[in-house]
Amino acid sequence: MYLHKELETLTRPEIERLQLERLQKTVRHCMNSPFYKQRFAENHLSPEDIRSLDDLQKIPFTTKQDLRDTYPFGLASVPLEKTVRLHSSSGTTGNPTVILHTQKDLDEWANAVARCLYMVGLRPGDIFQNSSGYGMFTGGLGFQYGAERLGMLTVPAAAGNTKRQLKFISDFGTTALHAIPSYAARMYEVMQEMGIDPRRDTKLRTLIIGAEPHSEEQRRRIEDMLGVKAYNSFGMSEMCGPGVAFECQEQNGLHIWEDYYIVEIINPDTLEPVPEGEVGELVLTTINREAMPLLRYRTRDLTRILPGECPCGRHHKRLDRMKGRSDDMIILKGVNIFPIQIETILLQFKELGSDYLITLETAESNDEMTVEVELSQLFTDDYGRLQSLTREITRQLKDEILVTPRVKLVPKGTLPKSEGKAVRVKDLRKTF
Amino acid sequence: MYLHKELETLTRPEIERLQLERLQKTVRHCMNSPFYKQRFAENHLSPEDIRSLDDLQKIPFTTKQDLRDTYPFGLASVPLEKTVRLHSSSGTTGNPTVILHTQKDLDEWANAVARCLYMVGLRPGDIFQNSSGYGMFTGGLGFQYGAERLGMLTVPAAAGNTKRQLKFISDFGTTALHAIPSYAARMYEVMQEMGIDPRRDTKLRTLIIGAEPHSEEQRRRIEDMLGVKAYNSFGMSEMCGPGVAFECQEQNGLHIWEDYYIVEIINPDTLEPVPEGEVGELVLTTINREAMPLLRYRTRDLTRILPGECPCGRHHKRLDRMKGRSDDMIILKGVNIFPIQIETILLQFKELGSDYLITLETAESNDEMTVEVELSQLFTDDYGRLQSLTREITRQLKDEILVTPRVKLVPKGTLPKSEGKAVRVKDLRKTF
Repeated sequence: MYLHKELETLTRPEIERLQLERLQKTVRHCMNSPFYKQRFAENHLSPEDIRSLDDLQKIPFTTKQDLRDTYPFGLASVPLEKTVRLHSSSGTTGNPTVILHTQKDLDEWANAVARCLYMVGLRPGDIFQNSSGYGMFTGGLGFQYGAERLGMLTVPAAAGNTKRQLKFISDFGTTALHAIPSYAARMYEVMQEMGIDPRRDTKLRTLIIGAEPHSEEQRRRIEDMLGVKAYNSFGMSEMCGPGVAFECQEQNGLHIWEDYYIVEIINPDTLEPVPEGEVGELVLTTINREAMPLLRYRTRDLTRILPGECPCGRHHKRLDRMKGRSDDMIILKGVNIFPIQIETILLQFKELGSDYLITLETAESNDEMTVEVELSQLFTDDYGRLQSLTREITRQLKDEILVTPRVKLVPKGTLPKSEGKAVRVKDLRKTF
Repeated sequence: MYLHKELETLTRPEIERLQLERLQKTVRHCMNSPFYKQRFAENHLSPEDIRSLDDLQKIPFTTKQDLRDTYPFGLASVPLEKTVRLHSSSGTTGNPTVILHTQKDLDEWANAVARCLYMVGLRPGDIFQNSSGYGMFTGGLGFQYGAERLGMLTVPAAAGNTKRQLKFISDFGTTALHAIPSYAARMYEVMQEMGIDPRRDTKLRTLIIGAEPHSEEQRRRIEDMLGVKAYNSFGMSEMCGPGVAFECQEQNGLHIWEDYYIVEIINPDTLEPVPEGEVGELVLTTINREAMPLLRYRTRDLTRILPGECPCGRHHKRLDRMKGRSDDMIILKGVNIFPIQIETILLQFKELGSDYLITLETAESNDEMTVEVELSQLFTDDYGRLQSLTREITRQLKDEILVTPRVKLVPKGTLPKSEGKAVRVKDLRKTF
């Protein structure tokens, strides 16, 4: 049931003791990085000031901008010749960010991913196909090393070429697949086109989904389509990649490995901790990293800590599914809206497919939102029923997001498909 | 000087003793594979019949067709649950082929690649950028694991996006690059377009080139362009991937690791061994593999064993650079021609660039060869000089390949470029 029983079943006091010990060690180690040395000096702070977990609050946040400003290697806490891997973001906006790893970091990363995969029931004997991009994208090598560490037969399919993915699944008897949610849905569509019934013609039974915010309804729908259990995965390259937090078989929140990370949830405006259980920005401190530890890193991902105990016996805190990134937030007529809120409503309608597109436009100096959504395959083209369906969706969306969008039902297959992350929002508003 | 001193400096008798021991063990182990068990039975052969290295000749060859016929897992010598990785060919013609690896296989593969990279002078502290495709293509994960094993900082750039590759090279201070030869030449062109002087603006000093047949002239040209030493690498996914044979710093043939492989060179028609030093088809027997050993595998690569001792102190045999694949051979007017013969001639002309295209066509039921080749950037457009150059190239080509091609000099940048393996031959002949 547990790959690392001792670490996975630590009690809360044990977790906190281990965290304090690792935090103190990490902070001392960070003084090898010119960046943290200077930042501590500027704040009249020394590693000895960290005497309890609460003292973490004394340390300033680290931001993505700090990573950019120190590009490429200014945040390293070890000499470069001790590092064996770097991952870099694409840097589409501004300088890319770089994360460095020592051999020990790669080992611990593989351990974390292996622990996650074991937690959802995967074992040696399973055949694990990874449809992530490889190379710089951490979903590729991250799952590769973790799945090998666990001893599964890995199929490094990499991204794209859906028909080839399906050939692998059927020829190799793939039992577990890692894919982003929109791509899993796309695979199902291609299966239908090819006459493949996933339950009859494949051995798939476990799906790992992550890297793209999605709703519980989206997950259940994918599970129904493919006849699998689908588990949420959370990771980010700044924290290494996949393996940061993962659902257990309860499918009720993502356990974040507190022997690797200290979790905080803050209000992104005031930067103060939010009250227990409220949604805010996830802030993580790495306490098990060598090449490039990050202290109080603002992830820009929005989530909350779920209250209560998990029946699985792990006391590592559970994150709610990501609500999106603080950057994804749409501000329309002064209201904060997350695309995931809209998705959650749409997917409650059996008449609708899983593809939708939110367009924001300025019409007569008025900002408006249009929600286009595909009908499911089997639905009617009776005009009256479509009209009443449109009205009902509009009403429910307004209840949720407080503004009234224009809702357009479009035939299945109309919206553009991508093999990468789905594009859900198009912002065409004029800025004045 | 040696990463695995003991294994790299074995004397010939020691190599042969180790080979026999490993061969016997491998053959016994192969009896776990239904394929080999049956093949041995059909040939009234048992593992006990292998008493000396010469007895290897008793074992039938294994071919690519055998891999296809047993697709996907019929050649495994261990239960599937002991394997942790598979690589599959694209299967553009017929069934794909699949190679399986245990954890020990991956370890030994990484060791072999690390040994190669160390042999050419790379060390921890070097920054190694890999421009191979990742995923199923073994050049990606193969070099990744080997370079990490050696302790270099690895940059998993993956294939394509030349400007991004160049940004990595300059931002990260890449000292060593793995690229196929035509792509290395392409990178240099883009550097020129961007005003980058590789000697002045980069720290590149080692290039690993492989996966594409190329001539000594091509290598020297790439070395001159980029200001690097370029080392030949030979590998194939059936043998694991990169790391099978590699040049040492003498740049005089590729040492094949005889603690991993037993080498034979055969006449592809008679299947008999060729006399010492003559060109023929490379046949390899894996003697250090667990999941899927291959006995006397016909690689279809053409090469020869170089005579004499290497000053580097390694007694592992040296392969001559690959002459192409038996499949690449062009038969024109009854003459066997390898594209590499043509390249070797072309690159002796300073007036020519490194891109060329061989087209085979039927004109009035006569098969003809056209060789288009790009001029180098600085060359004249004086018609008289171009004519005499064309004549001289035609004459030298005829001397080498025994048929007279039509030679066309074209301006630089005219021939189609690819970011994958260069396409050198277009066969448009009618088949009757």
